Amino acid sequence: MERIPILRMGKNLLVTIQIDMQDQTALMLQEDIASSIDQTGAHGVLIDVSALEMVDSFIGRMLVSISDISRILGATTVVAGIRPAVAITLVELGLSLGGVKTALSVERGMQMLDAAARVA
Amino acid sequence: MERIPILRMGKNLLVTIQIDMQDQTALMLQEDIASSIDQTGAHGVLIDVSALEMVDSFIGRMLVSISDISRILGATTVVAGIRPAVAITLVELGLSLGGVKTALSVERGMQMLDAAARVA
Repeated sequence: MERIPILRMGKNLLVTIQIDMQDQTALMLQEDIASSIDQTGAHGVLIDVSALEMVDSFIGRMLVSISDISRILGATTVVAGIRPAVAITLVELGLSLGGVKTALSVERGMQMLDAAARVA
Repeated sequence: MERIPILRMGKNLLVTIQIDMQDQTALMLQEDIASSIDQTGAHGVLIDVSALEMVDSFIGRMLVSISDISRILGATTVVAGIRPAVAITLVELGLSLGGVKTALSVERGMQMLDAAARVA
């Protein structure tokens, strides 16, 4: 089964989603991110979805879940690189990713995480 | 009946939950925290749940209640030490602890309370 790698970058974790995830891969990713935050004490999680040409409601809900789980564990999540067409689809699906911080690019996402860490 | 002790640490109260709480114990804890804030004028309440391997929806709602009650009494609550598996379960239960501040460890929780006290 595919397993999505989680990279450590300073105080943050970087997750690049490049494949269309199946349910099992997504559930494993949730668990892997949760235990990585616990083990590394990461302050932020950056999820890069710029490689995804399509995001369905399943992935949308998963992004919301990961963001909620991370927050409970004391980390901020930013989803970066959502394409314009994907943003339109998400809103059409009724998934406006409320409560999820988003950024146009990975670079801006990292800036958001750094800013959040300075405030906390 | 079990009664959960509330320790005073400077301007904060520290509550370590080590047992699976029954309804009565949880209600008493709410009352005890409320009257402790009133008597000591504490600025913050740190609830350490790292000893809990499982948090059900009852405990989840109680943490939200304690956080709300403390806030009304002028104190900030931080829940620290939620385990990764517990965070996932809470989100699956639909309890993402909205409005409750969380921290990975007691140490970070204390830093958050100190930071909140400086702003207030």
